[in-house]
Amino acid sequence: MSNSMGNQLKITSFGESHGPNIGVVVDGLPSQILIDEVFIQAALDKRKPGQSPITSQRKESDHFQILSGVFEGYSTGAPITIIIPNSNAKSKDYEHLKNIFRPGHADFVYDKKYGNRDYKGGGRSSARITAGWVAAGAIAALYLKQISKIEVQAVVSSIYNIHLEKPYSQYDWNKADSNIVRCPDEDKANAMIQLIERMQTEGNSVGGTIACKIENVPVGLGEPVFNKLNADLAKAMLSINAVKGIQFGSGFDSTLLLGSQNNDVPGNHQNNDGGITAGISNGEAITFELAFKPTSSISLPQQAINKNGEIETISITGRHDPCVLPRAIPIVAAMAALVVTDHYLLNLKFLK
Amino acid sequence: MSNSMGNQLKITSFGESHGPNIGVVVDGLPSQILIDEVFIQAALDKRKPGQSPITSQRKESDHFQILSGVFEGYSTGAPITIIIPNSNAKSKDYEHLKNIFRPGHADFVYDKKYGNRDYKGGGRSSARITAGWVAAGAIAALYLKQISKIEVQAVVSSIYNIHLEKPYSQYDWNKADSNIVRCPDEDKANAMIQLIERMQTEGNSVGGTIACKIENVPVGLGEPVFNKLNADLAKAMLSINAVKGIQFGSGFDSTLLLGSQNNDVPGNHQNNDGGITAGISNGEAITFELAFKPTSSISLPQQAINKNGEIETISITGRHDPCVLPRAIPIVAAMAALVVTDHYLLNLKFLK
Amino acid sequence: MSNSMGNQLKITSFGESHGPNIGVVVDGLPSQILIDEVFIQAALDKRKPGQSPITSQRKESDHFQILSGVFEGYSTGAPITIIIPNSNAKSKDYEHLKNIFRPGHADFVYDKKYGNRDYKGGGRSSARITAGWVAAGAIAALYLKQISKIEVQAVVSSIYNIHLEKPYSQYDWNKADSNIVRCPDEDKANAMIQLIERMQTEGNSVGGTIACKIENVPVGLGEPVFNKLNADLAKAMLSINAVKGIQFGSGFDSTLLLGSQNNDVPGNHQNNDGGITAGISNGEAITFELAFKPTSSISLPQQAINKNGEIETISITGRHDPCVLPRAIPIVAAMAALVVTDHYLLNLKFLK
Amino acid sequence: MSNSMGNQLKITSFGESHGPNIGVVVDGLPSQILIDEVFIQAALDKRKPGQSPITSQRKESDHFQILSGVFEGYSTGAPITIIIPNSNAKSKDYEHLKNIFRPGHADFVYDKKYGNRDYKGGGRSSARITAGWVAAGAIAALYLKQISKIEVQAVVSSIYNIHLEKPYSQYDWNKADSNIVRCPDEDKANAMIQLIERMQTEGNSVGGTIACKIENVPVGLGEPVFNKLNADLAKAMLSINAVKGIQFGSGFDSTLLLGSQNNDVPGNHQNNDGGITAGISNGEAITFELAFKPTSSISLPQQAINKNGEIETISITGRHDPCVLPRAIPIVAAMAALVVTDHYLLNLKFLK
Repeated sequence: MSNSMGNQLKITSFGESHGPNIGVVVDGLPSQILIDEVFIQAALDKRKPGQSPITSQRKESDHFQILSGVFEGYSTGAPITIIIPNSNAKSKDYEHLKNIFRPGHADFVYDKKYGNRDYKGGGRSSARITAGWVAAGAIAALYLKQISKIEVQAVVSSIYNIHLEKPYSQYDWNKADSNIVRCPDEDKANAMIQLIERMQTEGNSVGGTIACKIENVPVGLGEPVFNKLNADLAKAMLSINAVKGIQFGSGFDSTLLLGSQNNDVPGNHQNNDGGITAGISNGEAITFELAFKPTSSISLPQQAINKNGEIETISITGRHDPCVLPRAIPIVAAMAALVVTDHYLLNLKFLK
Repeated sequence: MSNSMGNQLKITSFGESHGPNIGVVVDGLPSQILIDEVFIQAALDKRKPGQSPITSQRKESDHFQILSGVFEGYSTGAPITIIIPNSNAKSKDYEHLKNIFRPGHADFVYDKKYGNRDYKGGGRSSARITAGWVAAGAIAALYLKQISKIEVQAVVSSIYNIHLEKPYSQYDWNKADSNIVRCPDEDKANAMIQLIERMQTEGNSVGGTIACKIENVPVGLGEPVFNKLNADLAKAMLSINAVKGIQFGSGFDSTLLLGSQNNDVPGNHQNNDGGITAGISNGEAITFELAFKPTSSISLPQQAINKNGEIETISITGRHDPCVLPRAIPIVAAMAALVVTDHYLLNLKFLK
Repeated sequence: MSNSMGNQLKITSFGESHGPNIGVVVDGLPSQILIDEVFIQAALDKRKPGQSPITSQRKESDHFQILSGVFEGYSTGAPITIIIPNSNAKSKDYEHLKNIFRPGHADFVYDKKYGNRDYKGGGRSSARITAGWVAAGAIAALYLKQISKIEVQAVVSSIYNIHLEKPYSQYDWNKADSNIVRCPDEDKANAMIQLIERMQTEGNSVGGTIACKIENVPVGLGEPVFNKLNADLAKAMLSINAVKGIQFGSGFDSTLLLGSQNNDVPGNHQNNDGGITAGISNGEAITFELAFKPTSSISLPQQAINKNGEIETISITGRHDPCVLPRAIPIVAAMAALVVTDHYLLNLKFLK
Repeated sequence: MSNSMGNQLKITSFGESHGPNIGVVVDGLPSQILIDEVFIQAALDKRKPGQSPITSQRKESDHFQILSGVFEGYSTGAPITIIIPNSNAKSKDYEHLKNIFRPGHADFVYDKKYGNRDYKGGGRSSARITAGWVAAGAIAALYLKQISKIEVQAVVSSIYNIHLEKPYSQYDWNKADSNIVRCPDEDKANAMIQLIERMQTEGNSVGGTIACKIENVPVGLGEPVFNKLNADLAKAMLSINAVKGIQFGSGFDSTLLLGSQNNDVPGNHQNNDGGITAGISNGEAITFELAFKPTSSISLPQQAINKNGEIETISITGRHDPCVLPRAIPIVAAMAALVVTDHYLLNLKFLK
């Protein structure tokens, strides 16, 4: 395994869903940054299960504990370690899946690669470990708030076939926090919520897209040719299990434009490049969108292979999210903040 | 800048379009691999300009020279260095653009970041440097051929609004090499070629999509949670300047499927996960698709900002590709071979 | 700061002397290694304070806790996190040193670099954090025991002017564990102990040398030209604060030999190269020796600079080690085991 | 192999003694640094063979060529690639050694590790490749000269049993350049030269020590706990094949001092810590000393093992250095400049 990310700001993720806790080490944060615990907890609360009727009903308080690196409320320059206890690991929920490889899950590949699959809720491959990423990302966001004007925001732009209709820049992204699905259009949000509730009832699941924007990024972040800002963002986002695609700016739609239409020229105000040109931030808002596949765990009966290579019909009970996107919003924002902070620190010497 | 990629197999890219040559160092290749120069040249020939009527008409032979790491035809374990001369750098083609930031190009961000823009054809940001990547990728492909059964292939799946209609797995990908646009469907290929020729005439440009598949990858490549195979592939592909998006398996379309439809279960033969689950190869073919924006260099007049912050109307003359996709095929294949080899070497100890 | 070490086996160190605990994350250990907790505790017990009359009399049980990566007693491939509580952090011991930069300590450089010195016993620069390294090294040693025949041993070869007289290979290194100073010669050990006790009484301190050997290392570990095995060992050893020098094989004494004398030729049985040639293990025992400066903390009055730049006379009270070498033995062995395991894992593919 | 070193300033070394050239890529140098070619050539001239009667009489002009990264005399931020042709590779000199493993050389370990030993003068393990390091180090030195007041110097402090007698700080190090052995004491230099000439005549060799100092380093370079400045210097120096030991400040002699004597306290002006405390530069001159073993290649008959495992008597003819230290001076200075520049760039954000 390889559980570290970043160069100037390096995070190391650890823990598994069945253990006493999950956690993260954040190394490279400059000293004298105020570590606002309320801010960190708020980020974790946006990710925690049981926060609304459309998320998993597992109960985890997700209260974190700082083990190192903070002295009288401020960072010291030393690595900051945060752990988050697993208070509600109901291992028996998983006992019946011990010999089955659940479709879309890590069960099969972990079993083949490591030889000792941890069947209790996914172990290391569980989305639970992203709680540590969110805590680390909140620390990066605190740094950005205190040192720069950079701001990261993420919203749900589609669930299944319900999609924001206008260009995303025409919405007030702050409104996304006013509803439980985290979509900035109230009507669409309601339709999305109804759809997710239907999935919950039917034992099925849906995916969708999350849009992210990072504003006030100075010109010059990104290191060609192999640590470009978009490349690092893509790598970080693809670390989220359910993410199956990413597009920057006009993305796949750019293939349906002519060069004369797609080029960002003065006056057309379109930012088709998504704020990054040739791997370097160009001063416009950085924008990208992520595809999340529908949750793999569904309670509808489906076929699966067991350890003997036979096909069985299984039904995954338990308290799964019918749609992961509302809870993925803080994860996307965290990963974006981490990548941007990493590049910002590297370029501090050039920036005024 | 940061010009190295990979862990076990590390490549370091160097050179710029105006200099005597571009090149690459490939470090970490095991010894005793036959370095077949004909194979490497064939890869370079697929990327070189002037190869067909629909590519840039610049003339570069792109003959390479090995400076180190090969002894009597075989790798020694030492770093292999390859250089490719820039025989046709017509600097005067660019003189008139000296004070202009071309839309969609690195001109503006390099000027701000490095303070000394090289206006002669892009310098380090030029796509010319990918010739080195192709040579490195050919070496990785030679390794894979000699040691494993892994095979990488890439084809054009769409140009502008002309798109392959059937699932890609239903095409014979080897047919892509029989036409100059490198699309496996002959009729579509002809339509694409006509469209690109029209763009050439009109002084405009188009983009499109490239599909890539990697077959016979053993189960187990990929290092959770921050060096997942898909994450590393995404980072490598986003290093290509024109790439604006990537999707694995069903990708963005997975958001339009229910969980019960999208899950790869025994019997549905769909490989929606694109051969990678939870960041680890699952034994199915790895499949992904890339969005290439239309070439930024067009000869149609367009607005641009100059060094004084004023808007000018420019027309980019020169011998530019009206569509980069045919020449990008070997680049995509090279980057895929490099990433897979890197992970393969890391896991050699586990694989038998 | 930069708190990670290693490539295949990467450790991340965290924690400080004043906090709730110190710890370590060990990432990259293969799965299915038996994690013998008794073995790990024994290593920690060799490092802990209060273990004998000649060490610091602070009381720390140094009982560790595994937070992640172990399932039913075996490694899973996931990162193993270990924490060790700081049970006896008497902060008031240090209150009077708040505004003084202690000679030989990190006080001054941390204050200048991070701006917020943690005066309570050194914080992150405290030798206490090496408890985490020892735990990580014990895990590496468990791996080596279970997978290879490689064995690491370290002994005290000199304290101040009391030095082993015969070539080290003529001693039975196992005898070092029979005395509290960890020297394989009983008479020398007694003299060393008396000397250290005198230092304790006088409020002074002494240094000395530690010899390390690593046996049964297969030929071929080490990556020229910039990750040579000796270079990586040197870097790891110089991470220990009190280490001021390292020499391999005949080391500095090789400068007093002619080429005809120093060359290891068949028949002279001398291993002047210390088991590593051109950066690669050559099959002989790897041998090196480390210089440890005398403990900087002494209770004799000495001059020091305070935060106002004035000179003060201070006397460092507290429970300091008059000589760190006996407790440094497990640290040296741990770092050696970590470096060798890292290289062993990288070369597993070549070794049979 | 692993041929890259550094984080902010990364060098990648390539080439072998039998090939067309050796070289280096320097990545991460800021733009707008004047690349003074006369300065670089002067550094190479101090390393080249045939420069004086006491060095190898091989003839290499060691004229270098810049392949990339420099535009109109200044760095652009892009990787700088330098090659140095091998003009005088007399392969037949080595033909008779084809089946012999020369004592002290890489022959045996390379043969075992890579399976295809290059018997022509060492190939990749040849000291010839350090010419590339010297060129890279000269670029780092140019950066330091233009941006900081940091200065690196290295001198020969002993050859065999002829040793500088006074503390090194009492010599005028600039005088070292006035004699061919590069020792700052004229009388000692003469004695050293005579000794080396005798070795040359006798077909034997000698080693010795090189002292290095780095002045005007700002407080704060070095990243605890695993990228300490001394640890990185040690790793870089141990990359030089003949180096068998390193000591900082009072080094091994510190073990013969009491704590009350060894501590650097105001007024004693001794700098026993060698300018680095707890891994961080403390503002004093950084000082360290290296042990170089006697050259392994000697023409006196000696025993060696051949490929069949039999013992043979060999005599290594050719034009070898009877003592490598005079030519190693620029290598040591280069590696020191590279390490310090790497840390300087990382800390630019904190330094004023």
